[in-house]
Amino acid sequence: MASTNKDVQYLEEVSHLLDRAKELQDSASSFLSKMKHEEQSILQRVSALQSDLKKLQACVASASASETLDKREAEKLEEELSRAKCMIADGDVSSLLPSKSNGKFLRMFLGPISVRATRKDVQLKVKEEYNNYRDRTAVMFLLFPFALLILRYAIWKGCFPAWAVQLYQAWLLFLYTSLALRENILRINGSDIRPWWIYHHYCAMMMALVSLTWEIKGQPDCYQKQRGIELFLTWAMMQGVAMLLQNRYQRQRLYTRIALGKANRMDVVWGETASVEGQLWLLYPVLFILQGFEAYIGILLLMTAVTSSVSEWQVVVCGGLLVIMASGNFANTVQTLSAKLRFKAKMKRSKSKQDLDQGSLANLRLGKSL
Amino acid sequence: MASTNKDVQYLEEVSHLLDRAKELQDSASSFLSKMKHEEQSILQRVSALQSDLKKLQACVASASASETLDKREAEKLEEELSRAKCMIADGDVSSLLPSKSNGKFLRMFLGPISVRATRKDVQLKVKEEYNNYRDRTAVMFLLFPFALLILRYAIWKGCFPAWAVQLYQAWLLFLYTSLALRENILRINGSDIRPWWIYHHYCAMMMALVSLTWEIKGQPDCYQKQRGIELFLTWAMMQGVAMLLQNRYQRQRLYTRIALGKANRMDVVWGETASVEGQLWLLYPVLFILQGFEAYIGILLLMTAVTSSVSEWQVVVCGGLLVIMASGNFANTVQTLSAKLRFKAKMKRSKSKQDLDQGSLANLRLGKSL
Repeated sequence: MASTNKDVQYLEEVSHLLDRAKELQDSASSFLSKMKHEEQSILQRVSALQSDLKKLQACVASASASETLDKREAEKLEEELSRAKCMIADGDVSSLLPSKSNGKFLRMFLGPISVRATRKDVQLKVKEEYNNYRDRTAVMFLLFPFALLILRYAIWKGCFPAWAVQLYQAWLLFLYTSLALRENILRINGSDIRPWWIYHHYCAMMMALVSLTWEIKGQPDCYQKQRGIELFLTWAMMQGVAMLLQNRYQRQRLYTRIALGKANRMDVVWGETASVEGQLWLLYPVLFILQGFEAYIGILLLMTAVTSSVSEWQVVVCGGLLVIMASGNFANTVQTLSAKLRFKAKMKRSKSKQDLDQGSLANLRLGKSL
Repeated sequence: MASTNKDVQYLEEVSHLLDRAKELQDSASSFLSKMKHEEQSILQRVSALQSDLKKLQACVASASASETLDKREAEKLEEELSRAKCMIADGDVSSLLPSKSNGKFLRMFLGPISVRATRKDVQLKVKEEYNNYRDRTAVMFLLFPFALLILRYAIWKGCFPAWAVQLYQAWLLFLYTSLALRENILRINGSDIRPWWIYHHYCAMMMALVSLTWEIKGQPDCYQKQRGIELFLTWAMMQGVAMLLQNRYQRQRLYTRIALGKANRMDVVWGETASVEGQLWLLYPVLFILQGFEAYIGILLLMTAVTSSVSEWQVVVCGGLLVIMASGNFANTVQTLSAKLRFKAKMKRSKSKQDLDQGSLANLRLGKSL
């Protein structure tokens, strides 16, 4: 057996490539370890700064409480301190901070994989996508039940066929699952979405699942039997309108807050600004009416279970879930509204003082006494 | 209004903290941009190396085909080249390579968030977790239907209650959804899992969803009506046993392959090694019997739909899905088996030559002619 010149040439080329692969492997590992090292050192500085911030904030608060510090000056100092906090929480630093661990729900569906975007622009893209998804969803939320209600008389002679309702319920199940997953992901990426809205989607998932197992009775005499479905579809349409209003309102408010530099852009907004006032007067009444209607359907279902002789367990579960969701939604909306009103009052107060105070912080900065 | 010394002191501290926050922010941004830059340069070197590897591989292949290069030498060179490829695909370099984009399924549920682990050890943890999840699942897969079948006679007097079956179906729906999500995530993290196994889980999700809407008929005369459910539960138990066998086999094979240095550890193994032979003789017959049984249940359901006068659409869909899944599983198992046999034959061939060849590559390396 002989190896020709050709063999030798190939062999040399191959071993050269292998060397290059090894070199590359080495650069990659040293790059990764260096990166990890630098990241660690930045994180140490962050935690030192954070603890100093906390200490100073406590000092200012206690000085303000014991009146060794003027209340208004204290407020200004606190504002500056929260600016520093925002800088850490919202800037490039934040993408280096360790993420919250996946909650139980995400672990159940996805396992332990990290769903945190390290780059801020990607995080914001995720948030934008979530908003767009909610918009698309709201339209479907309006059109799907609308189509069912129309077709009921146009084609189906007053009776929903089981498959159409079940298709709708399956869609709801998918929708609520994906919303719950996405909101958990947003939370990991630094959004301060209220936990209730996520729990609310867990309840809604459960209800969609239970309603899938619920036997849809057709002809004859379907009007009486399908009354619950009809009510639910009507409620869903109203929900669609409310979602559209809410999305519009929240997005505008988010942009206002970003412009004001006050918000972490990852917030799914539930907060305490008083902008976009006009829409508020429309949104809140609609929300409260919806919640009332939701509770009404729930109680109706529970009553049916009590009065009728042959009741299915699905009726009880769905009724109970609707009542729970309505009460939770109501409580959370009231909390948000009262936070908003408190904030508004505070803003008014500080605005009326603004002319007097103009420049006082600047003067304070220079250490001058007026 | 006077600002006291205390005020000034606080103000200085606050502005000092703000400066530190700004500095930190700057270090973080410069760190991130530097990191991005270095990553880019490594990636350029990778793509250059990859194209050179491809070129050389083509050269060697054509030289071997035109017999200007000895077949056996060519095989050795190819082996070396694939070693270089493995180094890129499996080492630290791989964690810098851009990830495949989320498929449609992941985008539907999670949106555009990246589910790629950048660190190799995390990727491997994800893989390990997936294997553990499959193990736990397999046990449930065995016990859940077993419990239902036992309780049917022990407590329920020969008839499944609807809620118990529906609970099982809801669990299946959750299980298949989470498996499909996790497998898509593994694929993003560099696993070469066969696409069919993911499609298979989409079909199974669909079937679980459809079966949830399927009215479970109880007393009287439930034996005849619940025959389909009984068959399905029996099949599910067998499936549980097969999963346990498969997991055991695949994990052992994975470890063997890692030890041999041939496998990317992210592979969900379906490949072409011939280790763990003993289990093979048990596993494949079980798999084929299962697939036959799956097709049998599917055809039985389809027959029911044809012969019985009042048929539900769920019967047709579930029957069809079972037949599709059985055929797909069969085709994929046969492909895997034949790849395995081919590989085994090749191994035997090269082993029988090994004594003759001992050291020939080493000699070639030194450029010697024997």
